[in-house]
Amino acid sequence: MKTLAEYQQIVENEITKQFFDKKTEPKELFAPIEYILEEGGKRLRPALCLLACNLFSEQIEQAVKPAVALETFHNFTLLHDDIMDKADMRRGRATVHKKWNENTAILSGDAMVILAYQLLEEIDNKHLSAVLKVFNQTSLDVCIGQQYDMNFEQRPLGNELNAVTEEEYLFMISKKTSVLIAASLQIGAILGGASKQDAENLYAFGENLGIAFQLQDDLLDVFGNEVEFGKRIGGDILANKKTFLLIKAYELLSEKTQLDTLISFSPQNEKEALLKISKVTEIYNLLTIKQITEQKSLQFYNKALQALENVQIVESKKEILKEFAKKLLNRKK
Amino acid sequence: MKTLAEYQQIVENEITKQFFDKKTEPKELFAPIEYILEEGGKRLRPALCLLACNLFSEQIEQAVKPAVALETFHNFTLLHDDIMDKADMRRGRATVHKKWNENTAILSGDAMVILAYQLLEEIDNKHLSAVLKVFNQTSLDVCIGQQYDMNFEQRPLGNELNAVTEEEYLFMISKKTSVLIAASLQIGAILGGASKQDAENLYAFGENLGIAFQLQDDLLDVFGNEVEFGKRIGGDILANKKTFLLIKAYELLSEKTQLDTLISFSPQNEKEALLKISKVTEIYNLLTIKQITEQKSLQFYNKALQALENVQIVESKKEILKEFAKKLLNRKK
Repeated sequence: MKTLAEYQQIVENEITKQFFDKKTEPKELFAPIEYILEEGGKRLRPALCLLACNLFSEQIEQAVKPAVALETFHNFTLLHDDIMDKADMRRGRATVHKKWNENTAILSGDAMVILAYQLLEEIDNKHLSAVLKVFNQTSLDVCIGQQYDMNFEQRPLGNELNAVTEEEYLFMISKKTSVLIAASLQIGAILGGASKQDAENLYAFGENLGIAFQLQDDLLDVFGNEVEFGKRIGGDILANKKTFLLIKAYELLSEKTQLDTLISFSPQNEKEALLKISKVTEIYNLLTIKQITEQKSLQFYNKALQALENVQIVESKKEILKEFAKKLLNRKK
Repeated sequence: MKTLAEYQQIVENEITKQFFDKKTEPKELFAPIEYILEEGGKRLRPALCLLACNLFSEQIEQAVKPAVALETFHNFTLLHDDIMDKADMRRGRATVHKKWNENTAILSGDAMVILAYQLLEEIDNKHLSAVLKVFNQTSLDVCIGQQYDMNFEQRPLGNELNAVTEEEYLFMISKKTSVLIAASLQIGAILGGASKQDAENLYAFGENLGIAFQLQDDLLDVFGNEVEFGKRIGGDILANKKTFLLIKAYELLSEKTQLDTLISFSPQNEKEALLKISKVTEIYNLLTIKQITEQKSLQFYNKALQALENVQIVESKKEILKEFAKKLLNRKK
């Protein structure tokens, strides 16, 4: 087994080979793809794919291109989501549709999906069909998650008919965030020659961990340290985003007028923004939302570990995944 | 062998089964997909896929889902192209981004690509990899064609540096239009158990025929019969679209001032529009552009037939493809 950083380096090298070294024409189509892959973040999904493969096989070469396929697909979703969310910035740089234009962002994104599938086509015949099925279902799930996320924006909170429930929220983040992490592990396992059951248990590990991860994300936005978090604290509150925290607060409050008033209040300056954030946070504190969310996150973390327990490999190999899970749960950014 | 209409009916039934009968949630994601597939036009690509399979095998069942994958991918390109082209209408109805909104059109289109790949996942192991490679390369080619088409809009005509050439135009329409027709035939052939060479010859047949088809399309826009064509005659002229006709006219004219003036003229009413159309058509007539384009189209038609000649099947089976090619070349709409 290697360290996560070593898997990440293998991924980085393959991305360079597949995307940065080829100067494919027309550049208008491929330059935005290079651009979004350049500042690629943590390469979490492909690194997990290689790691999962390595749990079952010393040969991880066959998982390198599929790992990059997962990263390519992930970045495609960011590219198109940024158009839909009208986001101007990503990882400190202009988003593709801002740097170029919307048409470029749509078409380059489309090409990225296909390039992702192209990175799967050399998979050995004995695994190709199984991997393709997981990749397809997961990719569709991510689209479904994004659609529910957009639907939720149009729906009410609180007691109103058709208000977003905790259960629906967890379902949405599972689709939008967790399944691709889960599939990365499952696909790596399949390519490493894992049994069907082990591959599915790793999927379950990733899915539950992904939900815990997203709940931590919701928490950090309100209770994180601005310097460590690297983003403005309270951004979700200002955007009235229907996070686990807000949905839970509405569920627990018997008298919702004060929160309703805060939600409908649109700050006109920094002072008002800070006031809104502190008032909503006050309600969260009163309801012990932080503890409730941590508890929920821990539930999913434990379910993830349980799934990992069931994987039939030596305990020592599970350590790196356990370390990784612990780090995710205790992260500050 | 069956008639083209019979293949089309098989496709229609499978589309109903795969899309219209399933009421998959969330409806916001899937309703636009049903909508664009409802008025599906001629189902040309999937019908050709089944036909090509049938040239080599009595069993065409294994080609039905892949055929629908090709139709799904084709309709995805229409959906996203309509956003990029800001088109309001398609086949007499509002486009998806007009009926819903742009975000819906982007995300539903994304889901369609994945649904197309999902329709490939049950292909037998012995053909899956080969089909996937053709499908991937073709899909990427279609994106490349669309990008060149958008690039051409920004580029000049005539003697100017960087003007679009005839060769570039033919390359673009080959990517944007022909390759998917070609791939439909090749994929059908692979699934029917054709030799690599036969499958590639059918690809070449489709590719050349597709170019001939697109050149006919350019011609019909100017020289067609409005009633039979079903669209306004001269639409391309009014849009200053860089068709084969316009590129050729610029190439042949030694004195380009008159055409330059006409191109830069933006009609303000119907009378001026008709004037622009008739003046440009006059130049086309003077240069015998119709005959030149027909000649070029015929060249590709003959190349298509030559490729078909090389396919190692009994002559009688080629008849339906020859009939089909002839009909495409002599079509009025």
